[in-house]
Amino acid sequence: MATTLKTPESASGTDAANLPAEVRFRMRVMKGETIAIGPGKVSLLEAVRKHGSISAAARSLDMSYRRAWLLIDELNRSLESPATISEQGGQSGGGCVLTPVGESIVRLYRDVEARAQAACAGQIESLTRLLKP
Amino acid sequence: MATTLKTPESASGTDAANLPAEVRFRMRVMKGETIAIGPGKVSLLEAVRKHGSISAAARSLDMSYRRAWLLIDELNRSLESPATISEQGGQSGGGCVLTPVGESIVRLYRDVEARAQAACAGQIESLTRLLKP
Repeated sequence: MATTLKTPESASGTDAANLPAEVRFRMRVMKGETIAIGPGKVSLLEAVRKHGSISAAARSLDMSYRRAWLLIDELNRSLESPATISEQGGQSGGGCVLTPVGESIVRLYRDVEARAQAACAGQIESLTRLLKP
Repeated sequence: MATTLKTPESASGTDAANLPAEVRFRMRVMKGETIAIGPGKVSLLEAVRKHGSISAAARSLDMSYRRAWLLIDELNRSLESPATISEQGGQSGGGCVLTPVGESIVRLYRDVEARAQAACAGQIESLTRLLKP
């Protein structure tokens, strides 16, 4: 959810003051220095679900196949049971689908964002009111 | 608040799997590409309040005076009314105190983190239970 403030009556070039305020909530579950579950991995899981393979998911996020594969591998290694199942394929991988664990991670993570934003609506409103319009 | 999981019975080197999971909530109020209010600026305000000057606050955060000054300046420019008041000083600045606006930003921001974590305790518990111990 973006909290949009009124834009000022007169524009003055590319000043950020002319842009509406947008509130971003990000939760990261850290294991040491590693982000076990965070916004990047959750977006990647959603892209895998939508596109049906790691390579297509990577393309949709403008990410290299290698980076996407490493993120998925890092996620799966941090879990008791993997978030994805890959089918055998060529060099750039075959199909890939989410497991029930992967589906749960996406659902819980997005639920956390929505609940956090709802629980803090008053404070967020107070904070954004301190900003220039 | 950190959600701590049990450590496994046997350690195996520096593997992140041996470290407890820690949950981080970060809210950022964006104006375009600029983080108007976020974790870095709030920590800096807290350090200014504690140490009484931008230079001492910067040192306490292992940050250059220049960077701390620029962050405070960027924050104040984004606000209707400034978060800090600086006294006249030498090249590296004199004393600096928080205004009521600065105090409100710290209070609201930390309140948001605590409320978000409380509102999502169940989901966070479910997510961390999917991780290896």
